[in-house]
Amino acid sequence: MTFTGRASKPGAMVTPSNFMSDNAAAVCPEVLAAVAAAAPAQAAGYDGDDWSRALDGLFSALFGRPCMALPVSTGTAANALALACLVPPWGAIACHPEAHIQVDECGAPEFFTHGAKLLLCPGADGKLTPGGLDAALAGHRGDVHQVQLAALSITQATECGTVYTAAEVAALAAHARARGWRLHMDGARFANAVAHLGGDPAPLVAGLDALSFGCIKNGGLSAEAIVLFDLALADQLRWRRKRAGQMPSKGRFNAAQIIAMVENGVWLRNARAANAGAQALAAAAASRLMYPVQANEVFVQLAPGEPERLRAQGFQFYDWGDAGSNQARLVVSWDTPAEAIARLAHALQAG
Amino acid sequence: MTFTGRASKPGAMVTPSNFMSDNAAAVCPEVLAAVAAAAPAQAAGYDGDDWSRALDGLFSALFGRPCMALPVSTGTAANALALACLVPPWGAIACHPEAHIQVDECGAPEFFTHGAKLLLCPGADGKLTPGGLDAALAGHRGDVHQVQLAALSITQATECGTVYTAAEVAALAAHARARGWRLHMDGARFANAVAHLGGDPAPLVAGLDALSFGCIKNGGLSAEAIVLFDLALADQLRWRRKRAGQMPSKGRFNAAQIIAMVENGVWLRNARAANAGAQALAAAAASRLMYPVQANEVFVQLAPGEPERLRAQGFQFYDWGDAGSNQARLVVSWDTPAEAIARLAHALQAG
Amino acid sequence: MTFTGRASKPGAMVTPSNFMSDNAAAVCPEVLAAVAAAAPAQAAGYDGDDWSRALDGLFSALFGRPCMALPVSTGTAANALALACLVPPWGAIACHPEAHIQVDECGAPEFFTHGAKLLLCPGADGKLTPGGLDAALAGHRGDVHQVQLAALSITQATECGTVYTAAEVAALAAHARARGWRLHMDGARFANAVAHLGGDPAPLVAGLDALSFGCIKNGGLSAEAIVLFDLALADQLRWRRKRAGQMPSKGRFNAAQIIAMVENGVWLRNARAANAGAQALAAAAASRLMYPVQANEVFVQLAPGEPERLRAQGFQFYDWGDAGSNQARLVVSWDTPAEAIARLAHALQAG
Amino acid sequence: MTFTGRASKPGAMVTPSNFMSDNAAAVCPEVLAAVAAAAPAQAAGYDGDDWSRALDGLFSALFGRPCMALPVSTGTAANALALACLVPPWGAIACHPEAHIQVDECGAPEFFTHGAKLLLCPGADGKLTPGGLDAALAGHRGDVHQVQLAALSITQATECGTVYTAAEVAALAAHARARGWRLHMDGARFANAVAHLGGDPAPLVAGLDALSFGCIKNGGLSAEAIVLFDLALADQLRWRRKRAGQMPSKGRFNAAQIIAMVENGVWLRNARAANAGAQALAAAAASRLMYPVQANEVFVQLAPGEPERLRAQGFQFYDWGDAGSNQARLVVSWDTPAEAIARLAHALQAG
Repeated sequence: MTFTGRASKPGAMVTPSNFMSDNAAAVCPEVLAAVAAAAPAQAAGYDGDDWSRALDGLFSALFGRPCMALPVSTGTAANALALACLVPPWGAIACHPEAHIQVDECGAPEFFTHGAKLLLCPGADGKLTPGGLDAALAGHRGDVHQVQLAALSITQATECGTVYTAAEVAALAAHARARGWRLHMDGARFANAVAHLGGDPAPLVAGLDALSFGCIKNGGLSAEAIVLFDLALADQLRWRRKRAGQMPSKGRFNAAQIIAMVENGVWLRNARAANAGAQALAAAAASRLMYPVQANEVFVQLAPGEPERLRAQGFQFYDWGDAGSNQARLVVSWDTPAEAIARLAHALQAG
Repeated sequence: MTFTGRASKPGAMVTPSNFMSDNAAAVCPEVLAAVAAAAPAQAAGYDGDDWSRALDGLFSALFGRPCMALPVSTGTAANALALACLVPPWGAIACHPEAHIQVDECGAPEFFTHGAKLLLCPGADGKLTPGGLDAALAGHRGDVHQVQLAALSITQATECGTVYTAAEVAALAAHARARGWRLHMDGARFANAVAHLGGDPAPLVAGLDALSFGCIKNGGLSAEAIVLFDLALADQLRWRRKRAGQMPSKGRFNAAQIIAMVENGVWLRNARAANAGAQALAAAAASRLMYPVQANEVFVQLAPGEPERLRAQGFQFYDWGDAGSNQARLVVSWDTPAEAIARLAHALQAG
Repeated sequence: MTFTGRASKPGAMVTPSNFMSDNAAAVCPEVLAAVAAAAPAQAAGYDGDDWSRALDGLFSALFGRPCMALPVSTGTAANALALACLVPPWGAIACHPEAHIQVDECGAPEFFTHGAKLLLCPGADGKLTPGGLDAALAGHRGDVHQVQLAALSITQATECGTVYTAAEVAALAAHARARGWRLHMDGARFANAVAHLGGDPAPLVAGLDALSFGCIKNGGLSAEAIVLFDLALADQLRWRRKRAGQMPSKGRFNAAQIIAMVENGVWLRNARAANAGAQALAAAAASRLMYPVQANEVFVQLAPGEPERLRAQGFQFYDWGDAGSNQARLVVSWDTPAEAIARLAHALQAG
Repeated sequence: MTFTGRASKPGAMVTPSNFMSDNAAAVCPEVLAAVAAAAPAQAAGYDGDDWSRALDGLFSALFGRPCMALPVSTGTAANALALACLVPPWGAIACHPEAHIQVDECGAPEFFTHGAKLLLCPGADGKLTPGGLDAALAGHRGDVHQVQLAALSITQATECGTVYTAAEVAALAAHARARGWRLHMDGARFANAVAHLGGDPAPLVAGLDALSFGCIKNGGLSAEAIVLFDLALADQLRWRRKRAGQMPSKGRFNAAQIIAMVENGVWLRNARAANAGAQALAAAAASRLMYPVQANEVFVQLAPGEPERLRAQGFQFYDWGDAGSNQARLVVSWDTPAEAIARLAHALQAG
């Protein structure tokens, strides 16, 4: 099946027992404080302020690689702008069929790249592998009559709540490099992946050309960062970002949020809290997990009637998979109350 | 598998035993005569000449429905321009994974539509069915986070050499209409389909919004026709065509070719000749046909070593399927010599 | 001359005597408080929260017309998204040669509209007039070989710091309507225009199809609003916004900023403060103003050597016009210190 | 004035006294013969045939520079595809306000370049000069907020019927090179320019990155050539052309037309005939020519009532300039009857 099913996204109100999405989470105190600190004074517009100027150094130090970082207002913009720098309009991007860029961005990658094509390559647990790419793309001739494979985009943590190890990323990077493809990582939940793997981000970005560094789901407010490792593309990214309406005049407020998130390890602290909550749920539903639980998302095969029972108890979550499949996605945020997690774990154990 | 394999397209020279593609065919005498007849005189530029002005009436009479017809220079342009009139940039087009628009147009649909997405819906023998569409699209939510399903594109005859019956087209048209989708037909080999079904095109275009009416593979020279049935889109198509560099200043020569092809049934005569040749091959390979042979393409599961043997005898054709699968595509053109067909049939029978 | 000159935009640090741009202004307390109030609690993602849901009603009441309002992250995005809803890719947008959409958005309108063309129509004091439009567009045939005039975009207040009266807007709206054009207003400094005209916005939006309602220059933080008056385009705008990466997952923070700005007249209070400062400067430079001062921008013809003298006194501002023309743009923000304004007025009077 | 006026293009029938456009001209015998010669045989599809393979050598020899040549179906496609290879979507193209790419291609350059902007630079007699470019672009800052100047496009012969000398082209090429711009030439009437300057094309293409080599107005049928001098862009052009629906399956017929036009000097013979006719008209209207007559177009300031009188005598031509200006464009084709030219010259002399 090309597309995995998913129940419609209700605009429902959020209760304390919300496990629908980390998008509903609160803003963490450090981020809010940074915005407040930057607010009362005048500062140079666009990227001329001190906060914006600090980002390149901040991320270069974090990753141990020279890089450029630019804030944008959404993860969709981060992914689509990054990809637009990596592939031509006649290019193709290999990605997983469940990738956010394929399923949840209303065609933003196609818009920003001026029509590049996503070639879908299945893989277990939401993860791509070199062998899986070879199999899925075997029939792609690549002559002048076809789009030209130009990039690989992987999601870390994946849409299935799993995490690529550094070795797995390295293998995909080598696979891409050998074929002249660029490598992009959608890191909407990159913090959760790094936290799962012990906290050192450097090995996870080796071989990347660009990373969408997610903040908003992880306690942020209104800024994500595009981290660009191929500095030859720096000007192009600046022009594309301006042209896309993603260069804010008071850019300091977005930069300040990102700094607050990265400085002092706030990003990892928040991610660890969310991951720990997910582990508690995973332990309670251990026998019916759909995928290994490695980040802050838990996919559970519920029993018939169980979704309704859980909702009757006040729990909020998305159905997953095909209609009637009784599959559920449970997302833990950095600020999900421990009490709510414990109650849901208890309910899951009761089955 | 998302993409079916296909050996690379060699730029090989063509021999009298060419079964590679009907693109290699000669131009039929009627078409050449029409160009020659139009050549020596001056005539109004763009679409102001008598030939161009006759096209709408010609096709309206042919199909028994009011329609507009405009020449373009390639089938890719016909498909992409038609689709651009039918779907918005955030739209999605349901099509078969082997559709020419997906596999062989270097992203032209994405270019002309400004980034619409093709959603691939498998089906046996290259054909889509309402049930197959439902299954493949079950997981497509269609909320604001996703591209919006806006059109269905089918190929007649299909990339597998099969033909939709009028009832099958009607079922798909009803399916599309019920969902508010537009219906496009890639008719690069529409003549072969009509010839197979007895020669009356009208039932095959009922329910269509636009048809790419192929001429070039069928003995034409340099013009295909976009036939637009939703006349509310007429101006839009004119503007898009001009903007795409597809409005020739001496438009009379393309229009004259199309008229020569349609008038006096030349298109059906040519298609019948090609179809008959394909039937001869099909009879010779009856036990190992991959798909029913209903148009001018024959897909055969050859034995190991057989592709090499056939080529050693001078036959030219494309490998098909995965590398090493020994599958072959044999295409018969309107002008393929009877002797070559007989020889290939004999060779296939010898197996 | 097609393009008016402007000295390069330095990334200079801002001093208390900054008159470079209202983009450097601080965030006003009400906006910051609204963000802080929304921060600690979870809420539904995307536009499902209470703040986002309140916007349509807020603006419908403000303008006395039914409308939809959606936050975006920059004025460039507001303009380009609005225009994309109003013109097709083959459309043309009539605008002033100095319009922000032409001069300062790195081609964002072309990107979002998929290639529409801006047709430049000069007018005194940065303002378009029906007669000026007629004159500038007299040679535009509008046949199939040309882009199709589809919208008029005006800036309120203009790039010259002038303001269209309600009667002037009405005349342009009638002109557009008579020709089947849509009407867009770039209101990056709409608040300053409304404040200048007495505070009632309703007469200034009559006849508009879409308004870019500016907040950021006027004490805002990170959100502008697109106000759409033609509700038939509502879904299209939602899809385009998502696809452009302008639909934030924590949309409540942008909506809350806009509400704080509009509620209780904060927007007009801030704008009046900035306008009053500009009037003080205008009085001091009355004899050498380049344009009437009606909003918060003052354009002054300085004497040779005067730009250098003013800068030596610590004043920051952009050169304007051609190199060496000694023209200056002085922008007053809602929070420019009264002392700085008084000092600059004094310096200008000294000439 | 940004746009020069032009009366609407009537779809009128053509009489023997047609001076409306060289688009109405007949196809010259050599071109028709080449098509007929290629028609009856099968040949490899797309660009795999002998004719298509000969084009690079043909033009490299003609121009004395290595280059690649690819047929396309219209001059609009040639211009837009060439420019798309030379400028990024955020790029700007400097051109004359009357350039065909600005006025007569329905936004094709914007479509193919994905939204690049044309910056209009006036110049006398339809010609750009280094000084005129400097003046028109003086206000263009080129910072990240603006489109980036990336190419210069000139028309040879110009829309005013004038011709750039080799020295003038060289000066513009040096100007462009010094600024890092690419240089494109719209050569829809390149043959007329070369004929005017004595017949050696090489000096006129020195410094060019790409040339749209026109054939159709000059006795051709359905093919123009894009000549690419920067061979590093060869693959990009091939992909863009396929993606644009401009790679015909029976490409041999377009290639054969171009070969017939270039071989044996047919292109110059045809152009000389047209130029000579224009000179005859110019001599007759010498005192009221609007521009020097250097190619096959003659612009005449007629007297009040004279347009009507000429039309009453059967002459067909376009009005030019503003409505009521009594300006006329008279175009002579390679095949305009000598008798018609003589009659019109006589009528003009009578004035």
